[in-house]
Amino acid sequence: MHLATIEVDAVTTAAVVDEGGYRPLLDAEGSPAFGDIGELLASGDDWRTTALRASERSTALPAADVRIRRPILDPGAVVCVGVNYQTHVAEMGATLPEHPTLFTKLARSLSDPSTIALPDSAGQSVDYEGELALIVGRGGRDIAPTDAWDAIAGVTIANDVSMREFQLRTTQWFAGKAWESCTPVGPVMATLDELPPLGECELRTTVNGELRQAARLDDLIFDVPTLVAAVSEIIALHPGDLILTGTTGGVGHAMDPPRYLEDGDRVVISVDGVGELASTVRRTPR
Amino acid sequence: MHLATIEVDAVTTAAVVDEGGYRPLLDAEGSPAFGDIGELLASGDDWRTTALRASERSTALPAADVRIRRPILDPGAVVCVGVNYQTHVAEMGATLPEHPTLFTKLARSLSDPSTIALPDSAGQSVDYEGELALIVGRGGRDIAPTDAWDAIAGVTIANDVSMREFQLRTTQWFAGKAWESCTPVGPVMATLDELPPLGECELRTTVNGELRQAARLDDLIFDVPTLVAAVSEIIALHPGDLILTGTTGGVGHAMDPPRYLEDGDRVVISVDGVGELASTVRRTPR
Repeated sequence: MHLATIEVDAVTTAAVVDEGGYRPLLDAEGSPAFGDIGELLASGDDWRTTALRASERSTALPAADVRIRRPILDPGAVVCVGVNYQTHVAEMGATLPEHPTLFTKLARSLSDPSTIALPDSAGQSVDYEGELALIVGRGGRDIAPTDAWDAIAGVTIANDVSMREFQLRTTQWFAGKAWESCTPVGPVMATLDELPPLGECELRTTVNGELRQAARLDDLIFDVPTLVAAVSEIIALHPGDLILTGTTGGVGHAMDPPRYLEDGDRVVISVDGVGELASTVRRTPR
Repeated sequence: MHLATIEVDAVTTAAVVDEGGYRPLLDAEGSPAFGDIGELLASGDDWRTTALRASERSTALPAADVRIRRPILDPGAVVCVGVNYQTHVAEMGATLPEHPTLFTKLARSLSDPSTIALPDSAGQSVDYEGELALIVGRGGRDIAPTDAWDAIAGVTIANDVSMREFQLRTTQWFAGKAWESCTPVGPVMATLDELPPLGECELRTTVNGELRQAARLDDLIFDVPTLVAAVSEIIALHPGDLILTGTTGGVGHAMDPPRYLEDGDRVVISVDGVGELASTVRRTPR
């Protein structure tokens, strides 16, 4: 199943996405039942059944009639993983890690898929990072690696947009990673049953059609069960939390000379079985 | 004015604290008007007047009848500053920074003042860091240093409890800084009019009565206006957000040999004009 959070006539709602279009999840009275996928996941472990039944109450809307929002509008946690592909470790001059490198963005750092709105103050060293993102379902604390997939509801795609000048001027990356509304996420959450074996899926990033990143997901240094166990040792995971699993080699900062994102650039990140996150860079003077 | 978030008969409410005790903020019907100080601050720029009027409707409760919660139960952002006192920079072997070092905790990393509940998995290298914390009022984006104090509602005290083994095993500190319910905050928010000139205030940390940290707040490398400007360049600040301004020299990790927190230890952090954050370490097997 593919789910999306959409806006229709200024109302935000979770929806099932199929060949017919977008089917908002409606309650028995015909009103939107969940303001986003996060509310659906918080409704309980039988959210899949709930979603199917609620989508059967609605008529499919064509893509032209909906605005695609990010799947989770206001996640309680956005935990990111750095240096998690060998190719990216090498290009950034880092050493192979023994533990996952964890940092965070804020909910307000996220944006809907279509646009990366960059204020001039973000500088000239703005870079893409194509990533698989996990969306937490049941969640929990101290989750064993063998139970990790049961805690996850599905996956989506994120562009861990990074202001390298700000990221690298102190030891901690937050200042370069958390810019307001600069991290597109979406456009859908793919449930796990929908996916080919995850390790066989490829993640690709193009900029204006030029291939920049390509990796199989089994190239992850710390795989999904290891990450879920590591994060849930520190904090309890809640429905709708996001875990961004890290990027692979091919970022603009590591090219010679570096090639950063410019106004009008089109960044498309795709993951087999999930879809495409396509975003346009818009410089916005403030 | 001193404000607190308290729990009375299983109901959480913002309250004014004075010599008489705790005065819950009540609406015209006599019900709690704000579930915590964050809700009060989000009610608008005239929150001070609102608080005074709402507190006049209630009878003061004695300390024995209330449970003190952290001032903001669920802040949208908890931004922390590292290496912001020269003495702590030196003891941690860091170099004097040109920019503030920013990282985050999650809302769920915070705890009420009384207890630091440590699971065994947190390891044996758990340390205190006494800090002044800013509570955002009006907030905003791209706040000029000269306008910074207008964006802040008041200050409180935080113990940036740090699991050094986890903090230092990768480049990013999140894994050592964000443990669930391990960062006590409170017990009150002191409004700015209440305070002596902030630079003249002293911050002190004791462990079981032994003085470990003492510094004047004008020893901050990056002062409050500089921090507010730096953070609000990256994200918009919202009412109830917290900014932890960094710790001074004297942490247990830097002692020779290091002295970490143990079950039953009592950590008291005081700031002139604000009060005392007193917390007891409780090891909790999971």
